[in-house]
Amino acid sequence: MKRIAVLTSGGDAPGMNAAIRAVTRSAIYDKAEVYGVFQGYEGLMDGAFQRLEPRDVGGIIHRGGTILRTARSERFRTDEGLADAVASLERHSIDGLVVIGGDGSFKGAYELHNLGVPVVGVPGTIDNDVAGTDETIGYDTALNTALEAVKKLRDTASSHDRLFIVEVMGREAGFLALNVAVASGAEFVVVPERKFDVGFLCDRLHQSRKAGKQHSLIVVAEGAMSAVELKDRLKDTGGYDARVTVLGYIQRGGSPTSFDTILASRMGAFAVDRLMEGESGIMVGTVCHEMVAAPLSRSWEGRKPLNPELIELVDRLSI
Amino acid sequence: MKRIAVLTSGGDAPGMNAAIRAVTRSAIYDKAEVYGVFQGYEGLMDGAFQRLEPRDVGGIIHRGGTILRTARSERFRTDEGLADAVASLERHSIDGLVVIGGDGSFKGAYELHNLGVPVVGVPGTIDNDVAGTDETIGYDTALNTALEAVKKLRDTASSHDRLFIVEVMGREAGFLALNVAVASGAEFVVVPERKFDVGFLCDRLHQSRKAGKQHSLIVVAEGAMSAVELKDRLKDTGGYDARVTVLGYIQRGGSPTSFDTILASRMGAFAVDRLMEGESGIMVGTVCHEMVAAPLSRSWEGRKPLNPELIELVDRLSI
Amino acid sequence: MKRIAVLTSGGDAPGMNAAIRAVTRSAIYDKAEVYGVFQGYEGLMDGAFQRLEPRDVGGIIHRGGTILRTARSERFRTDEGLADAVASLERHSIDGLVVIGGDGSFKGAYELHNLGVPVVGVPGTIDNDVAGTDETIGYDTALNTALEAVKKLRDTASSHDRLFIVEVMGREAGFLALNVAVASGAEFVVVPERKFDVGFLCDRLHQSRKAGKQHSLIVVAEGAMSAVELKDRLKDTGGYDARVTVLGYIQRGGSPTSFDTILASRMGAFAVDRLMEGESGIMVGTVCHEMVAAPLSRSWEGRKPLNPELIELVDRLSI
Amino acid sequence: MKRIAVLTSGGDAPGMNAAIRAVTRSAIYDKAEVYGVFQGYEGLMDGAFQRLEPRDVGGIIHRGGTILRTARSERFRTDEGLADAVASLERHSIDGLVVIGGDGSFKGAYELHNLGVPVVGVPGTIDNDVAGTDETIGYDTALNTALEAVKKLRDTASSHDRLFIVEVMGREAGFLALNVAVASGAEFVVVPERKFDVGFLCDRLHQSRKAGKQHSLIVVAEGAMSAVELKDRLKDTGGYDARVTVLGYIQRGGSPTSFDTILASRMGAFAVDRLMEGESGIMVGTVCHEMVAAPLSRSWEGRKPLNPELIELVDRLSI
Repeated sequence: MKRIAVLTSGGDAPGMNAAIRAVTRSAIYDKAEVYGVFQGYEGLMDGAFQRLEPRDVGGIIHRGGTILRTARSERFRTDEGLADAVASLERHSIDGLVVIGGDGSFKGAYELHNLGVPVVGVPGTIDNDVAGTDETIGYDTALNTALEAVKKLRDTASSHDRLFIVEVMGREAGFLALNVAVASGAEFVVVPERKFDVGFLCDRLHQSRKAGKQHSLIVVAEGAMSAVELKDRLKDTGGYDARVTVLGYIQRGGSPTSFDTILASRMGAFAVDRLMEGESGIMVGTVCHEMVAAPLSRSWEGRKPLNPELIELVDRLSI
Repeated sequence: MKRIAVLTSGGDAPGMNAAIRAVTRSAIYDKAEVYGVFQGYEGLMDGAFQRLEPRDVGGIIHRGGTILRTARSERFRTDEGLADAVASLERHSIDGLVVIGGDGSFKGAYELHNLGVPVVGVPGTIDNDVAGTDETIGYDTALNTALEAVKKLRDTASSHDRLFIVEVMGREAGFLALNVAVASGAEFVVVPERKFDVGFLCDRLHQSRKAGKQHSLIVVAEGAMSAVELKDRLKDTGGYDARVTVLGYIQRGGSPTSFDTILASRMGAFAVDRLMEGESGIMVGTVCHEMVAAPLSRSWEGRKPLNPELIELVDRLSI
Repeated sequence: MKRIAVLTSGGDAPGMNAAIRAVTRSAIYDKAEVYGVFQGYEGLMDGAFQRLEPRDVGGIIHRGGTILRTARSERFRTDEGLADAVASLERHSIDGLVVIGGDGSFKGAYELHNLGVPVVGVPGTIDNDVAGTDETIGYDTALNTALEAVKKLRDTASSHDRLFIVEVMGREAGFLALNVAVASGAEFVVVPERKFDVGFLCDRLHQSRKAGKQHSLIVVAEGAMSAVELKDRLKDTGGYDARVTVLGYIQRGGSPTSFDTILASRMGAFAVDRLMEGESGIMVGTVCHEMVAAPLSRSWEGRKPLNPELIELVDRLSI
Repeated sequence: MKRIAVLTSGGDAPGMNAAIRAVTRSAIYDKAEVYGVFQGYEGLMDGAFQRLEPRDVGGIIHRGGTILRTARSERFRTDEGLADAVASLERHSIDGLVVIGGDGSFKGAYELHNLGVPVVGVPGTIDNDVAGTDETIGYDTALNTALEAVKKLRDTASSHDRLFIVEVMGREAGFLALNVAVASGAEFVVVPERKFDVGFLCDRLHQSRKAGKQHSLIVVAEGAMSAVELKDRLKDTGGYDARVTVLGYIQRGGSPTSFDTILASRMGAFAVDRLMEGESGIMVGTVCHEMVAAPLSRSWEGRKPLNPELIELVDRLSI
């Protein structure tokens, strides 16, 4: 093994830079050369490669976003795009590629693998919705960012005796919403994985007020319903007047937590190990805190369920 | 002087609790009794008074929101409401009232003063739009909260080469927006105090891209325009595709900064001093870092202009 | 099951309040009464009990420290002390006790269990040195607190081209030190579990400077060596002039992270479940993210080893 | 005016990078060229200059430390050192120099001015002990960093009913200590500017305990006494058993607050304006929030007193 390339793809996530640093330094530690590819698959097709030395990734471990930048690419889904990518890799004599991103990006990695490119995926997304790994890079940071925001909302909610609805990210997965709800002591959570009953929620709010709670907080995953829609339904059904906050893009940014920094460091180094061992078409992950590898397809074929214990906790601890 | 009452009114602001603590402890230090009034003028009319001892305000100095809670009251604007408030104060033998809030709340305080109630206002609002004082309690915290949020957006903006619009609070005043813009190194700011020209902004963005800037950030005060409206106008005029984030209520919450905690402590103690000296109908404030008093009417009659030096800095430093 | 008591013991840890809230609310949800015991085993012997209702634990979920306060008790280790404790519990008709603390506190809990008191332990300590559970309450927060501090030191270290030594907590376990080292990208780590060779460290520093690193950071666990001793040895052996920072008590405080808040919530509720099921003499814990129970003795008889993968990562990623 | 050089000198302070960015961009905005000088006066003598373009200072506004690095230099105090510096500046055809640092660094700048080099000082130090300006770059950030640390100590102090002593920076000035004390609600503060009486402190602690305070916090400036010495004296005189924390270097680092970022941006741009106007031998500063210039000598000849109002507040608000 001589030359490894690394790119970030899809939505950015905190810790991606720590993963880039880990790939770069562990590969160089093992006597390989490393190239960074800019703007994900777009840069791969266009040949936007740059040699990375240990000092080039100095000081980036704590930075949010990705120094390699990222993009979503339609062109890469075409046969022509794929051929351009393979040609770029050959032109730079790349012996192995590390793709940092979510399951969408892993589908692209899988196509490259099928065309003979040695490729390993590193799961980086704040949604944590990648099967084959207990945790993804960026999720713990996003959870803490959302928690900090909700704590601030709680100050205002309790000062004004108000009902607040906060919308967090998560298109098809309610991990972020459910965990934010438990961590913030929210009174209710709405997730895509669970049927929503507005009447039941209104009953809960009614009991809550009767029990002496002067303010309430509801967390909703964007994939289940928009906060504005929920506000309207609460108004129509129960006459409740709620305030709405959509956390939005702030959930993607920020300096990674220690958990995400360590996870990214481990995953980046482990991905290089896998390439060095001649493996391809796999993603790295953690299962019970241990590093593991799984076929790339696991990421989109598998399904990580929400923990029912947490769903129950929201009810039980918000009395 | 024997008995002092304190209430918070209008929107909550970080540091209000530090002010409540300062009023309570400095008054007791000076041998007075202190009563907290809940939910602002609503509680004043309803007689929601509670005796406060030094330990009752222990541990609240760093907490966001207000332990006395706050509200906006229509009833207090009527003659009957005012009469109820005066009666409550007499029933509790209150010799002086401290009102913590913005200029709207100070108008109510002025009515009480005219009816013979000794009253002193303490300016607490994140908007900093109260004349008669250089700073208001909560503004510095809100500025830092907004800055932290914009720094996170910058991570994503730079990773994706995107144009972001972030909407911050400020209905009639652009202090928060302008200062966030300078502090975050934003490329442009839209404030209510300054005419907006979409063509000029599109030119600026065009030059910025030509100069090698791959992402841009625009800060807009809610009172000037909504972020969504600005996004639409940029699309229509320049074809720009911007992402939008509305910071919303998170700007109101959180633990106060050292600046706000110290300001609130000084203002609370100074307000008690003024009541002890027999003064009334005034607000406390800072001018050139010194504590001063001014007539309550100053708060809504005066006008604090934006600093043109800062407006120029946004242009000059975002090249 | 009718009445449950809860206490915190030993060193305080962030998340203890979230655990107190979870014990209180989940027990009341299950129709039990709850009593808080102040100052750990001291208050247990002295009968410092107070009834807790759901509102009494409102707003504490995010607060550092413990509202029940904590203490270390010599008297409790005597037969007389134990007898007093049992008598207190009987006087208040307590049917089950939850002890939140580390393995030292669990030894006391074990004595109570042997005397017939139904007792369940909840592991709360920033050191993470409790066998029988993958994680302890407070560890993730302490790790992030230490990381934030080390990031600030890095700013000064890199600005002045200096060598910094930072001492973190951990008397017999290097979890905190090792994980801080990986998360902060430290050049070297000194832990109690691993033999220290000053000559080897000087060689590493020498190579590091040769490779162009102008500053370096060493993390040392207090149980391995004091930072000042390490500084002296580096001076004597290699002529290095290091700056020293001892993080100290700040590592214990602060608002818990989302991880610790959720962990504390789960553990508190699960401990109540165990008491409700008639179990005793056990501690709750997590294994592979799932809630489990283990005999209390596991906490001090077992041994959690450091992950060798992380030790290797410190070397590999600091080139 | 064609070419401006900028350097940072003395201890690093948060916001120095924002000042470097402001100098660079405002000078280029005004059609000048800019050179960064590395490692302060050391680099000035050695000719360690590097051309800075607007993109070179992109993304540094929020970073702690200084990208130009800094140093203290003995050699620069010699005639030979000064001559080398002047020669370097001539060799690079520099028409004006901006020195970012404290009053020690300004003495060096004054020497250069006397030798005919156009030079303007920008006050950057966390100690705020520079006369001629109300505020220095880095002070507000250090204050907030210290406050955050003390808040964490408070969690442990209150959980264990303990007396804590925290030592903060400040060799000859008690600004940081006094303001941290007010902001954290400390029970006592020890500053260099004020005579310390251990008997008086013991009386205060005694009264405090009698009044029901179960824990206490004392802030001490390093220049007045070490925390360990204070601990020993409290033990000897009053029998108190205190815990000690020395905040140390963490107070220097971290991302600057909005206040420091804006201050640094204004000062950097204003310093360039002064050079462009042909001024020299001056420092920039703020007086009553307005930008002003003063002779460099003001910085070390003047004296900024502590605000007696704040000293009184510590007593009055800690009852």
